[in-house]
Amino acid sequence: MSIEAPLPLRYRFAAQMLRLRVARGWSQEELASRAGLHRNYIGQVERGNVNLGLDNVERIAQAFEVSALTLLSEPGSP
Amino acid sequence: MSIEAPLPLRYRFAAQMLRLRVARGWSQEELASRAGLHRNYIGQVERGNVNLGLDNVERIAQAFEVSALTLLSEPGSP
Repeated sequence: MSIEAPLPLRYRFAAQMLRLRVARGWSQEELASRAGLHRNYIGQVERGNVNLGLDNVERIAQAFEVSALTLLSEPGSP
Repeated sequence: MSIEAPLPLRYRFAAQMLRLRVARGWSQEELASRAGLHRNYIGQVERGNVNLGLDNVERIAQAFEVSALTLLSEPGSP
């Protein structure tokens, strides 16, 4: 039996954002443009360097047309 | 048929935080102390005045011992 600590929320978000971005075939620039954010910011979020605010969580979710909860869920098992 | 826009995420969080805080019978001060945050900050979050970062979402979820997703869910129907 293994108990793993849940990923900190910002890393979970980063992982889900990366997963979705790659699945859509979008560059960081493409996602940034759709979310109305800067490409460098998207890069930093993706590396877990940003403690992003709920407003930007929502912007990024809207860019993907998914719910914010999707982006904050535990990455699914493979 | 009525289609309601979902609440912006920060208001949804504020509503869920208030609901849980009252359900536990905690003052804002009590919650602040458990989350390691300032009482005034908790008050501002509760009024939807703060675009709070994911790190503080996590701190507040841990204070309640619930998942962050619980605090970001649509308030349930009555």
